[in-house]
Amino acid sequence: MRYLEDLKVGDKFQTASAVMTEEAILDFARQWDPQPIHTDHAAAAAGPFKGIIASGWHTAAMVMKLTAEARPLGGVTVLGLGVEEMQWPQPVRPGDTVRVESEVTGIRPSKSQPDHGVVNITSTAYNQRGEVVFIVRPNLWIPRRPG
Amino acid sequence: MRYLEDLKVGDKFQTASAVMTEEAILDFARQWDPQPIHTDHAAAAAGPFKGIIASGWHTAAMVMKLTAEARPLGGVTVLGLGVEEMQWPQPVRPGDTVRVESEVTGIRPSKSQPDHGVVNITSTAYNQRGEVVFIVRPNLWIPRRPG
Repeated sequence: MRYLEDLKVGDKFQTASAVMTEEAILDFARQWDPQPIHTDHAAAAAGPFKGIIASGWHTAAMVMKLTAEARPLGGVTVLGLGVEEMQWPQPVRPGDTVRVESEVTGIRPSKSQPDHGVVNITSTAYNQRGEVVFIVRPNLWIPRRPG
Repeated sequence: MRYLEDLKVGDKFQTASAVMTEEAILDFARQWDPQPIHTDHAAAAAGPFKGIIASGWHTAAMVMKLTAEARPLGGVTVLGLGVEEMQWPQPVRPGDTVRVESEVTGIRPSKSQPDHGVVNITSTAYNQRGEVVFIVRPNLWIPRRPG
């Protein structure tokens, strides 16, 4: 278990990698982001990316999944308070592999609840060519070590 | 079809509403955000929200779905360039209903690609009691009217 006082600015965490298959891209988009650029081969081929691309929310969900499975703080409960920024600099295409690197960019003990603090993270997702496909800057609510 | 020149700052759009069922909350979280606060009744009951709450990424995906289905621009292709901010001021619990109101907060023609522009949106999701459960500020890439 890692708590607030076990973290310092500059700490880095890595996740495993995962393939974004065409089937998964189509399934996610049909359920959550039903737009032709994510769901319709012919329409997407005629569009700006010359083919299907993953919903940005699919990439975001995959980054959440990989991060949760990596358990960088062990079993400590991590609540997301908000996100300062998200970017999708490059599209994710069917068959692309995604992995995540995260860095602690800020730590601030809570004044109102001294048993917790706010930790600023920058998570960057890379594809199999090392290109950045997603950046997210969440603010997390993390407990201090009990007792 | 509504294009860049059909939008003005202050324009508002509404979506239908949708229920976030317990089954859907558990399913989404098991797949994308496997943390006890979203997936384990006993652990969640002992936690800060005294019960299961939806993954914030589930709420975000539902807001995307409701917005895509509302088709505020008809069939015009809308690309998300990024998001300036996301907040989850209140938790979404099993059985809560979510609906979305969006407002155009900025419009800027592209200098590099004069056939497109960047539109800033603030989307706010409300539950059945009118409480704000999610705020997201996306920047969208929207085409000008052809010809």
